[in-house]
Amino acid sequence: MKEHEETSWSIGARTLPGPAGASDVLRNAIVSGPVPDVEAVGRAAPKNEAEWLAAIAELDEEKRPLVRDLIEQFPVSVENDEIGGVNVCHVTPAEVDPRHENHLFSYVHGGAYILNGGEAGLLEAIVIALRAKMRVLSIDYRMPPQHPFPAGLDDVVTVYQHLLGNRPAKSMALGGSSAGGGLILAAVHKFIQLGLDLPGALYAGTPWTDLTKTGDSYYTNEGIDRLLVTYDGVLEGAARLYAGDNDLKDPLISPIYGDFHGFPPTFLVTGTRDLFLSNTARAHIALRAAGVVADLLVYEGASHGEYGSEADSPEHQQTYGELNAFLLQHLQ
Amino acid sequence: MKEHEETSWSIGARTLPGPAGASDVLRNAIVSGPVPDVEAVGRAAPKNEAEWLAAIAELDEEKRPLVRDLIEQFPVSVENDEIGGVNVCHVTPAEVDPRHENHLFSYVHGGAYILNGGEAGLLEAIVIALRAKMRVLSIDYRMPPQHPFPAGLDDVVTVYQHLLGNRPAKSMALGGSSAGGGLILAAVHKFIQLGLDLPGALYAGTPWTDLTKTGDSYYTNEGIDRLLVTYDGVLEGAARLYAGDNDLKDPLISPIYGDFHGFPPTFLVTGTRDLFLSNTARAHIALRAAGVVADLLVYEGASHGEYGSEADSPEHQQTYGELNAFLLQHLQ
Repeated sequence: MKEHEETSWSIGARTLPGPAGASDVLRNAIVSGPVPDVEAVGRAAPKNEAEWLAAIAELDEEKRPLVRDLIEQFPVSVENDEIGGVNVCHVTPAEVDPRHENHLFSYVHGGAYILNGGEAGLLEAIVIALRAKMRVLSIDYRMPPQHPFPAGLDDVVTVYQHLLGNRPAKSMALGGSSAGGGLILAAVHKFIQLGLDLPGALYAGTPWTDLTKTGDSYYTNEGIDRLLVTYDGVLEGAARLYAGDNDLKDPLISPIYGDFHGFPPTFLVTGTRDLFLSNTARAHIALRAAGVVADLLVYEGASHGEYGSEADSPEHQQTYGELNAFLLQHLQ
Repeated sequence: MKEHEETSWSIGARTLPGPAGASDVLRNAIVSGPVPDVEAVGRAAPKNEAEWLAAIAELDEEKRPLVRDLIEQFPVSVENDEIGGVNVCHVTPAEVDPRHENHLFSYVHGGAYILNGGEAGLLEAIVIALRAKMRVLSIDYRMPPQHPFPAGLDDVVTVYQHLLGNRPAKSMALGGSSAGGGLILAAVHKFIQLGLDLPGALYAGTPWTDLTKTGDSYYTNEGIDRLLVTYDGVLEGAARLYAGDNDLKDPLISPIYGDFHGFPPTFLVTGTRDLFLSNTARAHIALRAAGVVADLLVYEGASHGEYGSEADSPEHQQTYGELNAFLLQHLQ
């Protein structure tokens, strides 16, 4: 899907050096990794439901040891539970900051609406629990191919409504990265439709706000973002699996098409190489144009979600340090 | 000058549609304009001082009618003056917002440290005076080829020191776009060296914070930024004219290499197609890492300074509206 194809520009090939302005840790990770291969990623797209399920199982399996390592190495406990029929996981740091004693971070994992079900989805939830020293509730929402839209959205709404019965809305943050960042923004559109009290703060890390191929960085950062690489193939396929028969521009699927008036204060993060730079920047501008308090960090040289994946980098520390300061400022 | 050439990636050619996520005004301006031509801009670089002076004279001459039109069409007066031997211009809106009655915006124009001397440098000063309804003092600092670094910096410091004799530092904003944004950040490094009281707020519109070719977007947005197009040729030549025999990485020339601790609250703006996206984002991250209050806007599809040049766009209105809110919040 290309918009304005009639006025497209042909952009020449170029050479891109390692990002000298990024931190040493991030730059070294980038220049020592493989060069992004657009063709290979395009070819890797599953062609039917069986292939999707196999690919999802394989990728999730790679994540689980990382999650278990974190749980073993750091002072955090995880406990599975169910809220209103939805699977959740309580992620609790050994030490809770007294300032966060009455706060809860409801976390919605990323993974293109197909990956990171169950244990595999806990990575960033654990990071937030440890960095902010606060309780996190990770929502293991249903996903395609078995459960397309609106199943995942319904699960987030169900859990949030249950939480509202036990605590003030403004004591809660709601957040996530990538598809999780998009899903929490869509969920707030839905909360407003339902007349629910809104959370005290949002975290939208490089959120997937537009599931159509609309946005400069889908084009400019193709083959430059070393983690997502390209929209064509896997991401486009995942978007269609998630949306099912629904319009990709439904604001509850692509939240950029919704009205952001009245949204809670929102913290957003992206990078100059992020395929979702435009997804993030567009949401930030729309939030601010609607009068919402919204902070945006853009890291030099960082691909999609790389502030999260390079755990030893200053970018990682700044992101979760600033996120925590934002939560302390806005949660009640 | 390429950093990390040994680890450079080859990035393939691509097609870039008009930015469907930008405002209608901005997108229409982009798709109805010429396609950026990297080769042509590279060839246009002056080869000696006479060619530089001729090119500068021609470009400045194009700006003057635009400035005169603004002055004729809008309720604003301009009056040339001299402060400490430096040429300045008082830009005064017919109506001053009572909340800004005691405030002054010291403006430092852009133009790659070579363009926009005299009247040609008043465009954004007038916009700020009108949009914020506040008094602006535009500093017509000396420039190369006749006056390389540190002449321009010295002029900004001279004017600021004189102003400090008459008013509290925190009643003043200091700001500008492009080279002006870089120069005001360099000036604050200098103010700190000199032990001066610092302004209440800064505006750094797409600031030229790194005069070397360091920064992702010098590479990723080459031929995509329709206003600057490329670093090679004119910009590189202007950087060398300005720096003279000095190191381009001197923090008073490329302020990104300085220490941002203690800086005043800073408002920054860029766009996804901006050749200076990295110059801006790196400064924003460095400011925030140093604990400084810093806000960043990134506009979808916008080239270098296009928030300023497309005066009828929502991007223009949001930029100067948010800048004014930022000044009202931080000036005393």
